[in-house]
Amino acid sequence: MTAVKLLAEIAEIGRDPQRGGYSRPVFSAPELELRAWFTAAAAARGLDVEVDRNGALWAWLDAPHGEREEVVITGSHLDSVPGGGAYDGPLGVVSGLDALDRIKQRGHRLRRALAVVVFPEEEGSRYNQACLGSRLMVGELAPEKARALTDSAGVTFAELAARHGLDPERIGADPERMRSIAAFVELHVEQGKGLVHLDAPVAVATSILGHGRWQLRLEGEGNHAGTTPMDDRRDPVVAAAQIILAIREEAEKIPEARATIGNLIPVPGGTNVIASAVDMWMDVRHLDDAVVRRLVSAVETRAHQIAAAEGCRFTLAENSYSPTVTFDVALQQRMQELLPGAPLLPTGAGHDAGVLAAHVPSAMLFVRNPGGVSHAPAEHAGDADIEEGVQALVTVLEDLSR
Amino acid sequence: MTAVKLLAEIAEIGRDPQRGGYSRPVFSAPELELRAWFTAAAAARGLDVEVDRNGALWAWLDAPHGEREEVVITGSHLDSVPGGGAYDGPLGVVSGLDALDRIKQRGHRLRRALAVVVFPEEEGSRYNQACLGSRLMVGELAPEKARALTDSAGVTFAELAARHGLDPERIGADPERMRSIAAFVELHVEQGKGLVHLDAPVAVATSILGHGRWQLRLEGEGNHAGTTPMDDRRDPVVAAAQIILAIREEAEKIPEARATIGNLIPVPGGTNVIASAVDMWMDVRHLDDAVVRRLVSAVETRAHQIAAAEGCRFTLAENSYSPTVTFDVALQQRMQELLPGAPLLPTGAGHDAGVLAAHVPSAMLFVRNPGGVSHAPAEHAGDADIEEGVQALVTVLEDLSR
Repeated sequence: MTAVKLLAEIAEIGRDPQRGGYSRPVFSAPELELRAWFTAAAAARGLDVEVDRNGALWAWLDAPHGEREEVVITGSHLDSVPGGGAYDGPLGVVSGLDALDRIKQRGHRLRRALAVVVFPEEEGSRYNQACLGSRLMVGELAPEKARALTDSAGVTFAELAARHGLDPERIGADPERMRSIAAFVELHVEQGKGLVHLDAPVAVATSILGHGRWQLRLEGEGNHAGTTPMDDRRDPVVAAAQIILAIREEAEKIPEARATIGNLIPVPGGTNVIASAVDMWMDVRHLDDAVVRRLVSAVETRAHQIAAAEGCRFTLAENSYSPTVTFDVALQQRMQELLPGAPLLPTGAGHDAGVLAAHVPSAMLFVRNPGGVSHAPAEHAGDADIEEGVQALVTVLEDLSR
Repeated sequence: MTAVKLLAEIAEIGRDPQRGGYSRPVFSAPELELRAWFTAAAAARGLDVEVDRNGALWAWLDAPHGEREEVVITGSHLDSVPGGGAYDGPLGVVSGLDALDRIKQRGHRLRRALAVVVFPEEEGSRYNQACLGSRLMVGELAPEKARALTDSAGVTFAELAARHGLDPERIGADPERMRSIAAFVELHVEQGKGLVHLDAPVAVATSILGHGRWQLRLEGEGNHAGTTPMDDRRDPVVAAAQIILAIREEAEKIPEARATIGNLIPVPGGTNVIASAVDMWMDVRHLDDAVVRRLVSAVETRAHQIAAAEGCRFTLAENSYSPTVTFDVALQQRMQELLPGAPLLPTGAGHDAGVLAAHVPSAMLFVRNPGGVSHAPAEHAGDADIEEGVQALVTVLEDLSR
């Protein structure tokens, strides 16, 4: 039960007393503490830790021949959404460490080196760029674009990276490293109730819904809330409210589509001030990429009409888009043979494994989440299910590294 | 033109590069810099500066007899809304310093001491309690309630006050000081276009619309934006959007009523997270206090219905309420005699003078604002109009102190 114990070790790091749960944005004090903890925990079990050019941590269990070629990697991330749960990310990291412990103890001669990877900024909660680290590594995100990203305090990713020991000029595609990866298996808490309905502890992932993030901006006219008559306003908050409702209406027209406004910031954001602008971020997902595009386009059309009627200006910009990912089918089949009874499940959530899937054989294992809740404090996985997950991961990694 | 020069001296303090304009919340670094600047500027003109138990600054021009009885005070505040203008508050402070300079230079023998007062947290942008300092002084805000107020970082007003040299146990009503005040005249930039339409540089205030702030909270169910079907959500952002539109509808039913949501915070506020809660703040104003109550009550009824239909919970709490203020009529008449041609104007904006008005004869002078915009970077007053304002203030203060 090392995985459960490891989770207990980090249970107090990054708690968010205001939102509940955890807030561990990349390179924040709590996330740095988690990175230091991971480095120490890996070193304590004899794993060789390195930081790659993009800030990902790699903890290596080398094969006797010492070569890091055709390596098999597992892992996940330690950053969180604001007020997130304890399992999204960390469960995959601790399960990886636990699995490598067990594989080492069994004393098999590894033909392939194994590593636990911790990717930075998977959630995109600081730079609004989900899977920032893995996208850089595979070459999907241009380093100059990443360098220029700014967080809410105006700190660029280049500045932040430099502050934490990375060379901002060297971030980006890492083709040598990519060529060395034979397979990536990410274990993750399920973010839904699929396994609850199927009454199983562990599943093999089939696909990730196409998903993206768009930034919506409304510009109106800031003014005094007490002195400006209702009929003389260009209030972007009122326009934003109508757009939020239009987004839901458009999403509800399409079976299995999802569209969400989870974050919205009125500028300047004073109680006695009519806002001059509103920034909001929209998350849209569907298995069919064309449907995602159609939905965003329908929202854009309606938002322009709404904004015009309110005397506001509307703009929409794509922050990121990840097409639907189908995980390596041969790897899925092999995992089903190795894990009899493990069902196949799709997911609506993005992951680093989804980014790597376009470049190397990638797979995911999901561990049951009793309430189905994720990205919130109620996110959970039971100890017995975590144990099942680690055993499944050991089985798969051993097979792949043989 | 001392007032204009004094404004230029502080023009770089507290600029907000993200919102534009100025962000000078009480006891923030920029507001502390402004307080230090005021203390130095007052001392440089031979005024005796003290800090009262509630953190207000008083710069005294004493009468020859040296008694501070039946004193005549002017002044305003140096804190701002987020992204506010350069004039709301500071114009009254610099005009007060300029006026005292001129009165001193004329060498009249004052029968009454004069003071320029700087009240803390007039905007309520840090503790959501407008006119915090003046409300404490007059005894309208209980000190235990003020001590327990918390800012967005969780810092209580008691902690903050102690950090800046106040004794939190001594904040509160100051009856001795209140008894010593014969009159308060606050000069302020107009927050509307009344003077533009009347083609006059300076007006005398008649009244302040009854106004208040209410905190609206919606609680739903936080979850993953990608994995939670649209029909299985209890999304407080969607409920908040409907409530924002209901607020406008209700306000538009009533002539001259104003209702605004200028600030709204989804919790936790992640792009890929369905919020678990939304906090928003509503500002409502009308000349008839009963109408304000009726409007808030109509909003509350509709909000409960909207929240219930979305599976959310709604609560509403009053942060503050200021009934309609009619300024001292005798003082208004005297000022109109002293300032021939100055029109009378009501305002929708709250001020420390409105708080003091229930306790001591109080009055306001408004200076023309060409665009009518306030609480935003475009807030403005022209140099010639500022000069007219200072001259009017000198005339009124001299008359009152004779």
